[in-house]
Parts: sequence; C-alpha cells; structure tokens
Amino acid sequence: MGMDKFSANGEGKASEYLYPPEILKRLDFSNSPAIFKPKISATQPGEDWMVVRPLQRSDYDKGFLQLLGQLTSVGNVTRKQFDERFTQMKQSGGYYVTVIEDTRSSKIIGAATLTIEQKFIHNCSFRGRLEDVVVNDTYRGKQLGKLIVVTVSLLAQELGCYKMSLDCKDKLIKFYETLGYKMEPGNSNAMNMRFDDPS
Amino acid sequence: MGMDKFSANGEGKASEYLYPPEILKRLDFSNSPAIFKPKISATQPGEDWMVVRPLQRSDYDKGFLQLLGQLTSVGNVTRKQFDERFTQMKQSGGYYVTVIEDTRSSKIIGAATLTIEQKFIHNCSFRGRLEDVVVNDTYRGKQLGKLIVVTVSLLAQELGCYKMSLDCKDKLIKFYETLGYKMEPGNSNAMNMRFDDPS
Ligand SMILES: CC(C)(COP(=O)(O)OP(=O)(O)OC[C@H]1O[C@@H](n2cnc3c(N)ncnc32)[C@H](O)[C@@H]1OP(=O)(O)O)[C@@H](O)C(=O)NCCC(=O)NCCS
Ligand SMILES: CC(C)(COP(=O)(O)OP(=O)(O)OC[C@H]1O[C@@H](n2cnc3c(N)ncnc32)[C@H](O)[C@@H]1OP(=O)(O)O)[C@@H](O)C(=O)NCCC(=O)NCCS
Repeated sequence: MGMDKFSANGEGKASEYLYPPEILKRLDFSNSPAIFKPKISATQPGEDWMVVRPLQRSDYDKGFLQLLGQLTSVGNVTRKQFDERFTQMKQSGGYYVTVIEDTRSSKIIGAATLTIEQKFIHNCSFRGRLEDVVVNDTYRGKQLGKLIVVTVSLLAQELGCYKMSLDCKDKLIKFYETLGYKMEPGNSNAMNMRFDDPS
Repeated sequence: MGMDKFSANGEGKASEYLYPPEILKRLDFSNSPAIFKPKISATQPGEDWMVVRPLQRSDYDKGFLQLLGQLTSVGNVTRKQFDERFTQMKQSGGYYVTVIEDTRSSKIIGAATLTIEQKFIHNCSFRGRLEDVVVNDTYRGKQLGKLIVVTVSLLAQELGCYKMSLDCKDKLIKFYETLGYKMEPGNSNAMNMRFDDPS
C-alpha cells in the first residue's frame, strides 16, 4: 500500500536491532553459576548509563568495529559492508551479536556473539557458540566480561541449544570455568586450518 | 504462471540438493597436504559405485540418520522433522552437509558438515567449521574419512573462509594433523557448557 515494506519492524533504520531485544528480558541470571559482586544482570547492569542489547545498525557509528579491533584485526569495513553483513546475518537467522553501550558517550564498550547452528543429531537440535568476546580495555575488571558472556550463554539456553561451545586461549580457561564452561577430558582440542589470503 | 514455484530448482523434490553439487567439481585436491594412496578425490572417489555429493532430501531413506547414529545420539527424527530442518538449513545458507553414497546399496556411508559463519572481523570474513564427521564402520580404513574431510575443507577454502576449525578427541588429533589441521600453542582449548534437557 505504498508503505515501505521494511518500516513496520524498523528494518533498514539506524535503530534496527539484529534480533528482538525482548528476549534479553526473559533471561534468569540466577540460572548461571557465575558470581556477581555486586549483583548485576542484562536488564540491571549496575549503572543507569549502561545498557545491554542486541547490535543495532547505528552501532557502526558507536565504535562497534573499533571495539572488535581490540580483539583482532578488523580492517577497513565501510558502512555499506557493515550494513550488508548486518542484513545477511539477520536474513540467515542464528546470529545474536550482543553489546554493552555506555549511553553517556554513545560508545559500545563490550560485545559477544552467540551463533546458533542447526543440527540433525540430538533430535534436530541446536548448538550454540560463543564468539568474539571483548570489553573495552578502559572498562575491564568491572564484571562486564562476565556480564556479556553470561548474557549470551543464558540466551543460548533460552533459545533451546543443547550445549554452548567456545574456543579460548590458555589464560582464559579459568575465566570461563567460573562462568560454567568445562574442558571435557580427552575431548577438548580446538584445531584450525588457515587459508592463505589471496589478496 | 501457475508453475510450482519450487520446481524450477527441483526444490521440495526427493532429489533436491542442500547446495549446488557443481561446487564440488571445482575443488583441487592437490591443494591439500593429505596423502592419498591410491589417489582419489571428490569427483574420482576410486570406485565407480561411490559418489561424493551434497545431502539430498531423499537421504532420509538412504540411512543418513542411521549413519549419524554411529557418531552420537540422533533420536527418532521423523521425515517431517528431517524435511523441515533441510529446508531451514537451505534457507539460512551456510550449511554444507556432504555425503558419500554407495550407489550399489543406495546407502550413505560417509558424511561431514561444513558450516560457514559470517563475521564482522577480518574485513567481514567467513569462518568455516567442520562438524559431524563419520564413516560407516564397515567402510573404515579405506581413505573415506580423509576423503570427506578434505572435500569439505577444500570447499571452505573455495567459498572464501579465512580459516576452518574443528573440535576433536585426543585420539583424532593425529588424523586431522595429516590433513593440515593444527593445534595452535596456547590457543587450542575447546570448552563447553551443557544445558539440561527439560524433556
Ligand atoms: C576477557 C575479557 C572479555 C574479560 O573482560 P573483563 O570485563 O575484564 O572481565 P571481568 O571484569 O568480568 O572479569 C571477570 C573475572 O575474570 C577474571 N579475568 C578476566 N580476564 C582474565 C584473564 N585474561 N585471565 C584470567 N582471569 C581473567 C577477572 O579477574 C575476574 O575475576 P574475579 O571475578 O574473581 O574478580 C577482556 O579481558 C577482554 O576483552 N580481553 C581481550 C579480548 C579477549 O581476549 N577476548 C577473549 C578471546 S578468547
Ligand atoms: C574418524 C573416522 C571418520 C575416520 O574414517 P576412516 O574412513 O576410517 O579414515 P581413513 O581410512 O581415511 O583414515 C585415514 C588415516 O587416519 C588414520 N585414522 C583413522 N581413524 C583414526 C583414529 N581414530 N585414530 C588415529 N588414526 C586414525 C588411519 O589409520 C589412516 O591413516 P593412514 O592414512 O596413515 O593409513 C572414522 O573412524 C569414524 O567415523 N569414527 C567414528 C566417528 C568419529 O569419531 N568422528 C570424529 C569425531 S571428532
């Protein structure tokens, strides 16, 4: 009816979310073995200037990619590339990029991604994966790493995953153990094959 | 024009492929460090009764799920569930379930899955993952494990992944090393959090 087919859900707009933000309200932080002192959660992150939410299109302008740059190389991603990847992730489904914003400075200060893989095994179940966890270096040691990881881990459970997996460096094993992740004896090896970048 | 909207690509039909089979013809097995004696590849698997191809809908009737049952629990997956998962995987994109069929018995005798995860890091790149590798026990030790793993690994490279990852048991580290996978010192830990099945 002449109406932009995207506008009903705010799609294509700067404020557009990658996934419905309401899901985060359903998470029960008492289900996590993580100990928060003081107690915080995704809906009550402890400071009124802090918000935990799905990635938005406008996060291109809020330093999301610069934050990822503290984790690994990101390269020069244009707004168009970012927009296209955001759209592709949303169309594919299964991408739950979650961020913490400091609303005083309008900057993204923490991020973690849950991806959900569809399986045939275990009665056509789902497997979650934790990816690309990072907290801005000036905000570290304030429970935000714990907060973002527990948020996406509870999200995986809420969305019906039978397990959630991650690969990590030796020095982060303890961190993840306090959050409920375990090494499984005889079955905890992450191997990689790297392909040459032809460019 | 009254034509079934699915029929043009054979969609919904028993013969429907999960992904275009032509991609497998482009793989160059000389790019893999794996040593095959005798030499075989996805297009020349060594026996005229053997074919390497994408999963098809009709593989429900060719023992695909029973084969996965040699890897882990599958449960009682109905044809409807299988069909729905097949359709969801195809719609999402990024799922490359690949099988070996013994065309004499019309049975699936080997399988491996490549999943492709979209990233923002590394210039909006792609990461491949190797999942659910299995060869029917009566066919083991005949290079089929190598064949199916090398096939999906080359596929990951062909599709532009910057790396391919897997988790494995201690006893399979050597197997994957011969195929080009490496443990990265200080960064090879796979951790899991398992959620209780409420059912
Ligand atoms: C890992 C990271 C996300 C942690 O964020 P953070 O906000 O500093 O973590 P928290 O404040 O929630 O710390 C939680 C606990 O883990 C501990 N911890 C944090 N980082 C740790 C590390 N690298 N090694 C060991 N323990 C660590 C903290 O001491 C704290 O312990 P406590 O609760 O007993 O006081 C952050 O250091 C980071 O972004 N690092 C760079 C990116 C990175 O390495 N990502 C993970 C890739 S595998
Ligand atoms: C692992 C598996 C796929 C290998 O299949 P396969 O067809 O027997 O393997 P191949 O014949 O291609 O063997 C290739 C080489 O790896 C070796 N190899 C195979 N399985 C091995 C194992 N479990 N441990 C050590 N080496 C192994 C073979 O001896 C062979 O070596 P060679 O080339 O020097 O002779 C098969 O054993 C299987 O389905 N296992 C059960 C499911 C499973 O464990 N999947 C992996 C989950 S992490």
